[in-house]
Amino acid sequence: MVYVKDLKWTKGMSVDDLVKGMSSVGFQSIELEKASQTIIKMKESGAKIFFTFTSNMVTSGLRGFFSQLIKLKMADVIVTTVGSIEEDIMRAYGEQFIIGEFNADDIELHEKGTNRIGNLLITNKSYEKFENVIRGMLQKLYEKQKRWAVSDMLKEIGLMLEDNDSILYQAARNNVPIFCPAITDGALGFHLFMFQQKNPDFIVDVVKDFSNILSSTSIDDRKGIIALGGGVSKHHAILSCLINGGLDYAVYMTTSREFSGSMSGATTREAKSWGKIKDNSDVATVIGDVTITFPLAMVRALEELSRKGIINDK
Amino acid sequence: MVYVKDLKWTKGMSVDDLVKGMSSVGFQSIELEKASQTIIKMKESGAKIFFTFTSNMVTSGLRGFFSQLIKLKMADVIVTTVGSIEEDIMRAYGEQFIIGEFNADDIELHEKGTNRIGNLLITNKSYEKFENVIRGMLQKLYEKQKRWAVSDMLKEIGLMLEDNDSILYQAARNNVPIFCPAITDGALGFHLFMFQQKNPDFIVDVVKDFSNILSSTSIDDRKGIIALGGGVSKHHAILSCLINGGLDYAVYMTTSREFSGSMSGATTREAKSWGKIKDNSDVATVIGDVTITFPLAMVRALEELSRKGIINDK
Amino acid sequence: MVYVKDLKWTKGMSVDDLVKGMSSVGFQSIELEKASQTIIKMKESGAKIFFTFTSNMVTSGLRGFFSQLIKLKMADVIVTTVGSIEEDIMRAYGEQFIIGEFNADDIELHEKGTNRIGNLLITNKSYEKFENVIRGMLQKLYEKQKRWAVSDMLKEIGLMLEDNDSILYQAARNNVPIFCPAITDGALGFHLFMFQQKNPDFIVDVVKDFSNILSSTSIDDRKGIIALGGGVSKHHAILSCLINGGLDYAVYMTTSREFSGSMSGATTREAKSWGKIKDNSDVATVIGDVTITFPLAMVRALEELSRKGIINDK
Amino acid sequence: MVYVKDLKWTKGMSVDDLVKGMSSVGFQSIELEKASQTIIKMKESGAKIFFTFTSNMVTSGLRGFFSQLIKLKMADVIVTTVGSIEEDIMRAYGEQFIIGEFNADDIELHEKGTNRIGNLLITNKSYEKFENVIRGMLQKLYEKQKRWAVSDMLKEIGLMLEDNDSILYQAARNNVPIFCPAITDGALGFHLFMFQQKNPDFIVDVVKDFSNILSSTSIDDRKGIIALGGGVSKHHAILSCLINGGLDYAVYMTTSREFSGSMSGATTREAKSWGKIKDNSDVATVIGDVTITFPLAMVRALEELSRKGIINDK
Repeated sequence: MVYVKDLKWTKGMSVDDLVKGMSSVGFQSIELEKASQTIIKMKESGAKIFFTFTSNMVTSGLRGFFSQLIKLKMADVIVTTVGSIEEDIMRAYGEQFIIGEFNADDIELHEKGTNRIGNLLITNKSYEKFENVIRGMLQKLYEKQKRWAVSDMLKEIGLMLEDNDSILYQAARNNVPIFCPAITDGALGFHLFMFQQKNPDFIVDVVKDFSNILSSTSIDDRKGIIALGGGVSKHHAILSCLINGGLDYAVYMTTSREFSGSMSGATTREAKSWGKIKDNSDVATVIGDVTITFPLAMVRALEELSRKGIINDK
Repeated sequence: MVYVKDLKWTKGMSVDDLVKGMSSVGFQSIELEKASQTIIKMKESGAKIFFTFTSNMVTSGLRGFFSQLIKLKMADVIVTTVGSIEEDIMRAYGEQFIIGEFNADDIELHEKGTNRIGNLLITNKSYEKFENVIRGMLQKLYEKQKRWAVSDMLKEIGLMLEDNDSILYQAARNNVPIFCPAITDGALGFHLFMFQQKNPDFIVDVVKDFSNILSSTSIDDRKGIIALGGGVSKHHAILSCLINGGLDYAVYMTTSREFSGSMSGATTREAKSWGKIKDNSDVATVIGDVTITFPLAMVRALEELSRKGIINDK
Repeated sequence: MVYVKDLKWTKGMSVDDLVKGMSSVGFQSIELEKASQTIIKMKESGAKIFFTFTSNMVTSGLRGFFSQLIKLKMADVIVTTVGSIEEDIMRAYGEQFIIGEFNADDIELHEKGTNRIGNLLITNKSYEKFENVIRGMLQKLYEKQKRWAVSDMLKEIGLMLEDNDSILYQAARNNVPIFCPAITDGALGFHLFMFQQKNPDFIVDVVKDFSNILSSTSIDDRKGIIALGGGVSKHHAILSCLINGGLDYAVYMTTSREFSGSMSGATTREAKSWGKIKDNSDVATVIGDVTITFPLAMVRALEELSRKGIINDK
Repeated sequence: MVYVKDLKWTKGMSVDDLVKGMSSVGFQSIELEKASQTIIKMKESGAKIFFTFTSNMVTSGLRGFFSQLIKLKMADVIVTTVGSIEEDIMRAYGEQFIIGEFNADDIELHEKGTNRIGNLLITNKSYEKFENVIRGMLQKLYEKQKRWAVSDMLKEIGLMLEDNDSILYQAARNNVPIFCPAITDGALGFHLFMFQQKNPDFIVDVVKDFSNILSSTSIDDRKGIIALGGGVSKHHAILSCLINGGLDYAVYMTTSREFSGSMSGATTREAKSWGKIKDNSDVATVIGDVTITFPLAMVRALEELSRKGIINDK
């Protein structure tokens, strides 16, 4: 029997202590600590870790945290949407995103050339910067070869960047492949299209990329997933794990619920019916906005992994 | 001033009367009628209608309703995820999906080879049938040409089907292109990969498909969207409309909310900051599961369009 | 095995046919039909029906539908919050509520003396009308006796009204008690307080009302609940049923989910751990705004009950 | 312009640093820091603080945190539901609540006499202990006087307890009134009813309690609210503040959204249309489970208030 314990504030308390305390509080705070413990086990077991997120999280300040995690070897395979790629590159080239309001006047924003994502803003200037940068990159890629698997292309782009806080940069330098199953669904899609108009033999090979994600892990590997949000990022990772025998560990952090049958809200339990997650796996689901829940669960896991000498935090 | 009116049951009442009555009730019932009216205006104005949905809706019995809508010319461009393609083909070849329970025993289901999507079930047998069918189709496609834009490939597949209730079939016969920006994110992705292993010059050209979606409408067209659920389907449609000058009409039906900055929960207001939806457009958002809300809003719209002689319901 | 069936529109289709069709669609549409069937069984079995709702639903046009249901003997005990009482009385005295916008300018509304509830508006004038009316009513009640159980007081008030569409009126005339466990939590609370200032021996006896709700049904009665929304209305009904041996039938219609441990989101399954709902009961839960889901489920049930001659719809 | 900043983990980081860092991340993490800042301003300004919560939070380990906050003078008026009272008393008498699972077997739990609230469990034994305790307390109250306003009764009960971690105990000793507008809606209601059966002149005066809450603050006081969850607790506090001129500060922490017109999901903006919150007030809303969000926001506020010497944390 584990009992509810009264939480207390102590001056200067650490995140580690708070999340540990939350494990005896109730409701999602208990699930949060389960997520931390599942991440710890995943890493300790030597599992290959699939890390998936949606682009709005890269618009947010989680971007730098994600790149730090890659450097700390907390991710072996990344799956995301194309906005993540675009916004990581903008930031790597010095563009800044603005903190705004959910209740902004959107028509006024539009007149000013400012685009809203929840309470964050990206200016048209940042998209213009991206355009200038990506054109040159595509030209260089094309000069190397005409036909690119998406993850190979993203690795090359990562190697062209010079920003320690960039996800693409850290992934490229740490040999972590980035998969992006809907690579054309963003500004990059438009620039790829423009480039192909001039260079019809330029090919983005999404089918070859499926081969890449399958060979990024093997049936023999223990496999874990940390899925932030839902959509194709989450689905693509668990699909490739299904083909490779299923996941041993799964942490889902999301705001979606299962009642409408969506992929985003699909539970770890549902995933077991498919064999996406093994029957005897360790799983945790935390319901809430990941800009709050993920740093908490992950900081707690990092502190423990650091104490155990499993991650190198120098 | 429009006032709340008391709703009353009358024996044998029609959907049309109920939804009309709901327009004076409150909360989402009011938004539902707004959605109906926006669909009616969209169609009356001659706008090109983008119709987007996620694959779980095709697992459900909405599949036949969607194909009926295509036949009734209520959709000019479709954007969806690859599960929709797979499940439409399974059904066209006689496979049946089973009604189950949200609280099913998923480990038992797994042992029986049955895969759960909310309260619906798809057996492994249906995936095997899909495998058998798609292999032959890919071979035929390959014999025609080596390099395929996704929407062109899906049209060819539609022409190979013989099922009036199939989305692919009706879309192909009514010249409605189907876009699927994450074409490899499903069983089809695996079969494309297997096929390419044997036929390395087989190419699925997602960049060319971006050209196709851009040319499916023009800047001069009035444009509307009916977006069911979120994710890449919704985003891809509004992105292509943004490039072509923005949408004049938008109906969003979803369970997602905006507080976590997700695309699925992004509002029509937020879309205006980007120019995805024009400042002076007609918009409606209905919060709720589309298996309930969409048939209501659309049946009401169809009845009115039928009365006005705008759709041909013979 | 029950299979998914493709939904189709047929011209002039009835609500009854649509909801029947939805039973083979998927996700919440299936649960909607389960709700209808549970309501039908509840009524056919002769169960005492607890009907609970929150005040925003009485602000909406569901008010007239609720009063119609009472007249049709579809409710034996009502539990609600005090706003329902206030707004039912305002409407009975001719006040009208206005249809507004979720995105209204609330500071402007405040300046105009208009109060917002989602996309509905109530003017200060309606509250003034309520004040004028209720003062006289309290005086009459006081002249009859000094100490009132809440449900007895609400019955007396119902008998003072002259409006067929009023919930209080129909409940009083059909001997359906209305319980309101938080009777002071609204404008009525303020007027009770003002009245008691002048008449200190005026007592609202909430403890006596607990006796009333317990004796409104017995352990031997079959008992069912239709709970719209959550909060104290839902809890009070299931608490009193727990004491009387538990519910045989339960339909929950709500937008709340269980992850935060709230009463509003508590499931029928959780209720079984308490004995609030019997282990072998018939239950259904529909997730969505009740202004849409409840009329659908209930109209379908009424049509069937009418066909079977169980309700008298003359 | 405030810009998004990349969040980074530093070994041993404090909650204070993390939440400060979150202020530049995005989405709800930004709102969390706004909540902290609003709480700080509320306290610095000398506002009377209304603190409202639902009973499930007292089932959880937040109970001890709430009592600590009362001791630290962070609450001047409390509004809650009756389950909070019951469970605080059980805990004060040594009962323990158990950490369970959302997916528990509820029929098995029922057979074992164990009641589930989300992932927490309360045994029947705890309810029996409560019964034994409360009977004696009611007898003592009755011997003092026959007619009790709820908050006066709860203060007396608090004075009978001997537990530093008890909310009732700390509230009684710090002269913080506890209001409970639906005092009969729980096991206490049943025991009040049993007691009144034997002692018909025993009266719980809820109308007098309305007088008490109105006089707990005045129009001249600056007023703030920290509302955790929704329902009658939240509504009762803002109603009484409306009558006293409206709130100057408001922090809402909830999982409910506004689309269905519920009180729980009603926004701070909507509250302005009523005058519940003043037009020029400081407000913050955080969407998420309060077992995670509230400790974060409040610990950050306590650290700052401690640094400024505004709270006495000795």
